[in-house]
Amino acid sequence: MLNLTDVPAAVDAVLDEFFQATGPILESIYPTVGDGGRALRDFVMTGGKRIRPMFVYAGRHCAGDKITVSETPESVAETLRVCAAIELIQACALVHDDILDRSDTRRGNPTVHRRFEALHRARGWDRDAAHYGDSAAILIGDLALAWADDLFHGVLPVGDTAQREPPRPTPFAASAVWSQMRTEVLAGQFLDITNEASGDESSTAAERVMAYKTAAYTVARPLELGATLGGADETLRRELHGIGIDLGIAFQLRDDLLGVFGDPVQTGKPSGDDLVAGKRTALLAVALQRADGDAAAVLRASIGRALDEAELAAARGVLVDSGAVAETERQITERRDAGLARIEGLDCAESARADLRALAHRITVRSR
Amino acid sequence: MLNLTDVPAAVDAVLDEFFQATGPILESIYPTVGDGGRALRDFVMTGGKRIRPMFVYAGRHCAGDKITVSETPESVAETLRVCAAIELIQACALVHDDILDRSDTRRGNPTVHRRFEALHRARGWDRDAAHYGDSAAILIGDLALAWADDLFHGVLPVGDTAQREPPRPTPFAASAVWSQMRTEVLAGQFLDITNEASGDESSTAAERVMAYKTAAYTVARPLELGATLGGADETLRRELHGIGIDLGIAFQLRDDLLGVFGDPVQTGKPSGDDLVAGKRTALLAVALQRADGDAAAVLRASIGRALDEAELAAARGVLVDSGAVAETERQITERRDAGLARIEGLDCAESARADLRALAHRITVRSR
Repeated sequence: MLNLTDVPAAVDAVLDEFFQATGPILESIYPTVGDGGRALRDFVMTGGKRIRPMFVYAGRHCAGDKITVSETPESVAETLRVCAAIELIQACALVHDDILDRSDTRRGNPTVHRRFEALHRARGWDRDAAHYGDSAAILIGDLALAWADDLFHGVLPVGDTAQREPPRPTPFAASAVWSQMRTEVLAGQFLDITNEASGDESSTAAERVMAYKTAAYTVARPLELGATLGGADETLRRELHGIGIDLGIAFQLRDDLLGVFGDPVQTGKPSGDDLVAGKRTALLAVALQRADGDAAAVLRASIGRALDEAELAAARGVLVDSGAVAETERQITERRDAGLARIEGLDCAESARADLRALAHRITVRSR
Repeated sequence: MLNLTDVPAAVDAVLDEFFQATGPILESIYPTVGDGGRALRDFVMTGGKRIRPMFVYAGRHCAGDKITVSETPESVAETLRVCAAIELIQACALVHDDILDRSDTRRGNPTVHRRFEALHRARGWDRDAAHYGDSAAILIGDLALAWADDLFHGVLPVGDTAQREPPRPTPFAASAVWSQMRTEVLAGQFLDITNEASGDESSTAAERVMAYKTAAYTVARPLELGATLGGADETLRRELHGIGIDLGIAFQLRDDLLGVFGDPVQTGKPSGDDLVAGKRTALLAVALQRADGDAAAVLRASIGRALDEAELAAARGVLVDSGAVAETERQITERRDAGLARIEGLDCAESARADLRALAHRITVRSR
């Protein structure tokens, strides 16, 4: 079996092969369609930490030793294909998110909708460049979502697939986890934008977004998916899902803190980005509950608009003084420790537990 | 086997069951997420001619008698599930199209993005209602696309699917056609908006949009998909695909004529809608090639903007006088006759040929 640290490069190789196969198909439909394929390839191949594939692989590792599935090249290829498929889901999620959040940059490059807006202007085309950019990015995200399913099921959208040797079918139990994961992330994202619009200040609303948009999608379902590919029984799958929710929530809470207090040089995002964007995080919900009336009003007035240095400092002050930051740090520690303790109790190889520990630290103790 | 005319109701029953299963899942994530599920259900269940499912069924019928696949209830259920899955692809395509085209109404109701814009206003929420509407509709379209794949593979995104009896796996050969269909419709749609933006006047560009966005997606791939589910051999699949391209192009050319000359009462769209929307149809390409300089200039000036009665009449005049309308009618007849002739040569049951003939007339001789 590959080591965990080899997974990102191995997944990149699968993705690269996929784009080499699909690029000419789009190009042959019409040269301008080729631009769409290149934008998606560039987006996927330049950046991304491949966190979700590593959790799939770790889950597979947990099941592998326990269930003693023979490690045929085919089973390794299947796992890597599913890992690559998740990265295409992530591409759809980010490309569409960037439209929703009106973001200009991602991973140091223009976002996909801005890339097509710029292309429209550079070619001197007719009518609304920004609307063309959004429209192109909606369709490119859709293509990523459709292709994710193709990869998951081992199908390439090539000209004539009738003669191809089909891979072994992806197990139905894995398809079921895959289905839950996609529904959960889309529902979580829908809830997120709706909370922002409605100004829902309840902890419940923020916690549901964390659970579905982040914890399930980023950690719990990938772990469970990997374990299912390895033939894990229901007990191991449930336990990994539970560990994934604990770690995933710790991950999101860390993200909440970085979203307001992170160093822009490290995070690549502007100072206080989550406040400016109007994100309804759990951190914010705790602060609004705990701050007194005046302080809560200061914080509330800082949500969803541009802030100068003094305003940002004032908002940060409320988050600290209300105890919300300390409470969030406490919850991160609690969730991480709970996850780590459950990892020790897993009935699997020590090398698989070591992988999980390493990932648990990686996603909860970080500065970017 | 069901009759062709029973297919829409049978597909609606599958879709209804699907929404009854998925609705409570979204509702349980958070009540506002339930709004998203209801909007998708309403969109899918109120309207739609179920053309694509009928072609899937017709294709299945062509293969059924020839290959003598036993008509088990399971094989009928599989076909209907695939038919329902296509309607969810169609839901994604239309919901996202309506954002791209900035359409206000669809099937007599507000479009999905306008529904959420209105909900935002009605609830007195914060910030940009139109942007919230677009964002919600992007995510609802994504959900439809993800769910289409779930249905295609017989998976329901329910809370715990581990105990469910899995259906027999959808054949890999059908997954390959499904993959091609999704890539083709998205590529065709991408080409369509890019032609509109670039003002590409070539017949090739317009023909490629027809071939991929309409003919392949609406007729050729559904027919081929149904035949593949029935175990058709390569010869029958290719022949049905070819028939589908002929009929699908005739269908789109009829649509081009209705888009400029159709009766708004019949089509449900404003007069001259395609001109106003700036659609780069084959009809338009032919007219621009054949009209003399002054007439072409009149027509070119009518593309992509609001038109009064006199302007619309002038543009229509150019389409008629240039011979583009007659040429388009000639091509419709040619394509339909070619498709009908090939139907007669199919090595399948007479009842299957009768279904195909009926569908061929239905989609090429119509006023709406």
